[in-house]
Amino acid sequence: MELEDAPKETSETVEPATDADPAQDPALPADYERLFKVVEDNPEDFNGWVYLLQYVEQEVSAFNSVTCSVYRRGLQAIPLSVDLWLHYIAFLRENQDTSDGEAENRIRASYEHAVLACGTDFRSDRLWEAYIAWETEQGKLANVTAVYDRILCIPTQLYSQHFQKFKEHVQSNIPKHFLSEEEFVQLRVELANENKPSGDDAPGEELPPGTEDLPDPAKRVTEIENMRHKVTETRQEVFNHNEHEVSKRWAFEEGIKRPYFHVKALEKTQLNNWREYLDFELENGTPERVVVLFERCLIACALYEEFWIKYAKYLESYSVEGVRHIFKKACSIHLPKKPTVHLLWAAFEEQQGDIEEARRILKAMEEAVPGLAMVRMRRVSLERRHGNMDEVEALLRDGITNGKNSSEASFYAVKLARQLVKVQKSIGKAKKVLLEAVEKDETNPKLYLNLLELEYSGDVQQNEAEIMAGFDRALSSTMPLEQRLIFSQRKVEFLEDFGSDVNLLVAAYEQHQRLTTEQESLKRKAENGSEEPDSKRQRTDDQSGASAQMMQDMQANHAGYNYNNWYQYGQYNQYYPPPPT
Amino acid sequence: MELEDAPKETSETVEPATDADPAQDPALPADYERLFKVVEDNPEDFNGWVYLLQYVEQEVSAFNSVTCSVYRRGLQAIPLSVDLWLHYIAFLRENQDTSDGEAENRIRASYEHAVLACGTDFRSDRLWEAYIAWETEQGKLANVTAVYDRILCIPTQLYSQHFQKFKEHVQSNIPKHFLSEEEFVQLRVELANENKPSGDDAPGEELPPGTEDLPDPAKRVTEIENMRHKVTETRQEVFNHNEHEVSKRWAFEEGIKRPYFHVKALEKTQLNNWREYLDFELENGTPERVVVLFERCLIACALYEEFWIKYAKYLESYSVEGVRHIFKKACSIHLPKKPTVHLLWAAFEEQQGDIEEARRILKAMEEAVPGLAMVRMRRVSLERRHGNMDEVEALLRDGITNGKNSSEASFYAVKLARQLVKVQKSIGKAKKVLLEAVEKDETNPKLYLNLLELEYSGDVQQNEAEIMAGFDRALSSTMPLEQRLIFSQRKVEFLEDFGSDVNLLVAAYEQHQRLTTEQESLKRKAENGSEEPDSKRQRTDDQSGASAQMMQDMQANHAGYNYNNWYQYGQYNQYYPPPPT
Repeated sequence: MELEDAPKETSETVEPATDADPAQDPALPADYERLFKVVEDNPEDFNGWVYLLQYVEQEVSAFNSVTCSVYRRGLQAIPLSVDLWLHYIAFLRENQDTSDGEAENRIRASYEHAVLACGTDFRSDRLWEAYIAWETEQGKLANVTAVYDRILCIPTQLYSQHFQKFKEHVQSNIPKHFLSEEEFVQLRVELANENKPSGDDAPGEELPPGTEDLPDPAKRVTEIENMRHKVTETRQEVFNHNEHEVSKRWAFEEGIKRPYFHVKALEKTQLNNWREYLDFELENGTPERVVVLFERCLIACALYEEFWIKYAKYLESYSVEGVRHIFKKACSIHLPKKPTVHLLWAAFEEQQGDIEEARRILKAMEEAVPGLAMVRMRRVSLERRHGNMDEVEALLRDGITNGKNSSEASFYAVKLARQLVKVQKSIGKAKKVLLEAVEKDETNPKLYLNLLELEYSGDVQQNEAEIMAGFDRALSSTMPLEQRLIFSQRKVEFLEDFGSDVNLLVAAYEQHQRLTTEQESLKRKAENGSEEPDSKRQRTDDQSGASAQMMQDMQANHAGYNYNNWYQYGQYNQYYPPPPT
Repeated sequence: MELEDAPKETSETVEPATDADPAQDPALPADYERLFKVVEDNPEDFNGWVYLLQYVEQEVSAFNSVTCSVYRRGLQAIPLSVDLWLHYIAFLRENQDTSDGEAENRIRASYEHAVLACGTDFRSDRLWEAYIAWETEQGKLANVTAVYDRILCIPTQLYSQHFQKFKEHVQSNIPKHFLSEEEFVQLRVELANENKPSGDDAPGEELPPGTEDLPDPAKRVTEIENMRHKVTETRQEVFNHNEHEVSKRWAFEEGIKRPYFHVKALEKTQLNNWREYLDFELENGTPERVVVLFERCLIACALYEEFWIKYAKYLESYSVEGVRHIFKKACSIHLPKKPTVHLLWAAFEEQQGDIEEARRILKAMEEAVPGLAMVRMRRVSLERRHGNMDEVEALLRDGITNGKNSSEASFYAVKLARQLVKVQKSIGKAKKVLLEAVEKDETNPKLYLNLLELEYSGDVQQNEAEIMAGFDRALSSTMPLEQRLIFSQRKVEFLEDFGSDVNLLVAAYEQHQRLTTEQESLKRKAENGSEEPDSKRQRTDDQSGASAQMMQDMQANHAGYNYNNWYQYGQYNQYYPPPPT
């Protein structure tokens, strides 16, 4: 038994399976149980199936039905393995029950099953060759032709070789053997009409019935040659078209350097190749080809969320069950720790109306990887959409209490405060949440901003004192100077835009100047007394110079922090120039 | 006449004066008028005064009172010029009216006036020397001592030379000549007491009255020597203290490389030296020294707002009129185009209750330099504080109409919209303003953000459709892709936090993914097909890698734009990872 596609490493596949059925026959030996456990744990471990089948074939060959069911389960898990199909059919042929006269049909049905499952795979040639060889062996030459007619329009690696062999098949056999009676008769009539002299619409020579030979031996030979020519000619057109299809896929197929699964990351170009190939088939291929390509892709790229998500998205317009199956396979087997695909699965179930399942999926994800904000926020969002506001609050409060660090706790505090204000309409509760948070996370500018936003969202004239208190809370905090500087800038602008008292405005401006000077002197100290030559640092207190400096400062502040910018500042950078330095 | 302090370039001073009085004598020659015009236009042009005075002295020496009044006006404008004082006093001495016997007193009063005006200047030594020489000339040796007693406690450049000369003065004269009678008598008593044998409390030898010599010639000589010793000894202590004061100022004075005015910018180290020197005197000096240093500083640094502002601020606790004088001098003469000092002057007048003057100052500034947003916004702010809401709206609408470019027009549109919402409480009017602005400035993210903020400020559940429309307006705009990406990110987060429909959330997520993919492909194109080796670009779809990338993207966005961040996004960067690339 050769393992062409699956190298040794595949046994490293570690994702535990949760949906494999346990062995159904209770009286089997322990070795069988052990080997079965391997594939039960990981249904996509190709080697696992091989060892199990070897055992089954050699040690318990009497248990043919068991073997058969093992094969079937394997093929269900890995339907794209040409090798597994070939082994399975070889097993069937060796062990078939010939008593009922249906053996040949059963084998043919298995080949059919096989080519339906993976016959559009670009690398399925060996399966098709085996099918053709077997039909030839059975002497069913018309069936051989029919199989060729299928493979000749499927873009595969050996497309050209098939056409060569097909021509040999035609040349080495006579038409009445390799054509169905229907096609033979139709072709005979066509040829007879073509050979009539033009303008002669008198009935021609009487043709013999069915596939009987023409009486005239010379005409007989001519008919055979003409038929061979005609048959080949029509396939030539199909071949040409298929060759074009192959040419479009050739580079993509060449680009697949690792068709099997491996835990190591795929190279970026490999991933791009899969992306582009999928996009190509999505645009050009039949649904069958698209599905087969997705299935192939998800062997090599099983650890990449994006392909599972793309597949699920593709199946959306075909089958709810199909989508569910893909999400389940991705989340349960391959990616139990990837949040995005879980979020999408949960959203899908919510869209289908199954809130309970959506809840379960998100909880399972949270248990697998605790502490992901995106998952917790989706749980919050789910409960909010379904009106469970107590649960919303509880989940957010839990986030505050159990946040990994103060910054994460503050993140949830901000979210809870917004929920309380915007959904539950309680400014008081929101303020309490933020004030508690700021006690624990004193240097987090987002908390000060959200406190300010709370006051600002009301009547700015009535709330002026609270807004000033909010600014002063920030300015007297232990936040880094550069942060406090942003708050003092905002304070000046707030007073300019909405303040009632010019004295406060002037005082805020002076405060801002003091902080700016302080920062400048810190900067000078940081430069460690290494003064540049005067000529380089020379500048006037020219507006443009000062504002360019300020622009830089502000961009630096922006880049360093990712806060919500409660109150815009310095939109026009000449607005409040810093004191010249 | 030598021009020690003022080099030729000072005539380049260009700021037009507005407060110089016109010549008061109508019948003067044209040359006089022309020369007067120069100093009228620029009262601080030292050379201008020199030429005018030369003309006045030589050509119209008969007009002594005119000359005198010209001197006085010059000294009022430039009280710190030792040269001007010396020339003035020389002129007085040459031209004095000796008929009333008060000539000497008038000269002395002029010296007094001069040393009061600039005698604490570190470089005022020549004035003091001239004063001492004149008193010596007059034979008023006690006066000479009194002048020495003053200069010996003033930190000046030649502090040491003064003490040397003082000692010569003491050695070459006898105490009863160089001491006042009071000091002489007191010293005589002191010495007599010291010379008494200890324990002997019997009354000593009778001392002669007043400054009469001691009868015993030997005692007489001893007394003179002792007195000289004593007088020098007490001055030695003063000298030591003054030397210490000088040492603290020496580096600052050494640092003043250009004490005169020049239009060229001062070097950064020069400016820093002035800043630090002023801060030193503010902390250590007398108000007199502080004022003199400010006045010296504002000759060299007349074009630097910060020093005028610092001076005005210093004077605040002394004199409203003093502050007003400084602001007026700065804004009217030296810095008619500098906005900050105008804003502060206007604020000062508003604080004093003179709204009309504040209005006038801001308007004048706006006329001098039209189009400064900070000035326009202060005008708006002034009118708002005094309840003139129609004027507020008119000023902002004028800004929208006459903005230099679309981005400035949009700045005013945002300000007006905020005013309309937060002060006039009219969301409808605000929305109209922003929608009109967005038509003219389609790619300005701030406008889209403010439109969103408008809807968000209300009930987010009721306004969900409007908020979605706001996002879609931004997403379908012609803004650069990287901006639209930020909006699509925010849309996802808004729907997560407040949206009612999971379908919208999923659709928004997909939309965001599409934009992200689009951006990635643009980036690849921008890299001009220059693929790095795979090994370098290799990455898994590991969460941390993706989020690091997103963090970078967001920081880049932050740095590139200075918008108000209406809705915070990606606070936790794993929140919505982009599709792997």
